[in-house]
Amino acid sequence: MMTEIDYMRVAMAEAEQAEILGEVPIGAVVVHDGKIIGRGHNMREKFQDATYHAEVLAIMEACQNLGSWRLEDCDLYVTLEPCIMCSGAIINSRIKRVIYAASDPKAGAVDSLYHLLQDERLNHQVEVKSGVLATECGDMLRHFFRMIRKKRKTERKRQKEIAN
Amino acid sequence: MMTEIDYMRVAMAEAEQAEILGEVPIGAVVVHDGKIIGRGHNMREKFQDATYHAEVLAIMEACQNLGSWRLEDCDLYVTLEPCIMCSGAIINSRIKRVIYAASDPKAGAVDSLYHLLQDERLNHQVEVKSGVLATECGDMLRHFFRMIRKKRKTERKRQKEIAN
Repeated sequence: MMTEIDYMRVAMAEAEQAEILGEVPIGAVVVHDGKIIGRGHNMREKFQDATYHAEVLAIMEACQNLGSWRLEDCDLYVTLEPCIMCSGAIINSRIKRVIYAASDPKAGAVDSLYHLLQDERLNHQVEVKSGVLATECGDMLRHFFRMIRKKRKTERKRQKEIAN
Repeated sequence: MMTEIDYMRVAMAEAEQAEILGEVPIGAVVVHDGKIIGRGHNMREKFQDATYHAEVLAIMEACQNLGSWRLEDCDLYVTLEPCIMCSGAIINSRIKRVIYAASDPKAGAVDSLYHLLQDERLNHQVEVKSGVLATECGDMLRHFFRMIRKKRKTERKRQKEIAN
């Protein structure tokens, strides 16, 4: 039987796929009856589509596999705290439980900026667990952004050299 | 030149397409430089996908048409106040302005339950206008739900007759 850590490792593997494409490394999986029925990684740049977040893509695949927009008995694992859009997609698809790794203080809508998944005014609430493999998933993101900054710095330096 | 009312009428025509499919009648269009570059209507039931809201589909089409996930100079017209997911998609795609018709007191995240589009903590804020063709768009929804209730009542009555 797979544990929470095992599922998060699969979400991390999805995040690695995003990184290979030069995308911000975020990955997600949807689990139903112990089985992974949806996977997704951030592909915003590749497809130039603002909605192509890991969670949305994993939810779409899960809906397709179950043949239903209701993912009532499903859990979603994601390497970063979901944003507003993804929190809304989680609510709309009636996902039962969300397990996320690293927090997102700037855009996270589950615990950081809002508590959207637990709003009693809505017709669905979601159980939340955070911190599973938080350091590993956070490190992946920090490493990615460090590389991006380094690359930009090198490019600026090169352009200066060309100009001189 | 098309006015706000004209664009909302196109969004209403999209909502009518949803109604024909038996879907909750909600429609949206994305406008760039006066031209409609994205259209969408609710297709959650048809495709059994929780993310197939009018706004998300209109945004996806607009991104595809512009070849960019950034819809910075675009306006979105929608017949009902956007939910959390769609508000997040609007923020993520950097849409400049949202014009919506009817309010959604139960799930609206622009003015009713939240003011997500104007959160200063996020890296993008959206101008909002509401009430354009609100009565017409609201009536469409009310009519739809009245029909649904009527149909259910007739079905229950028929099943009772069969049982007796």
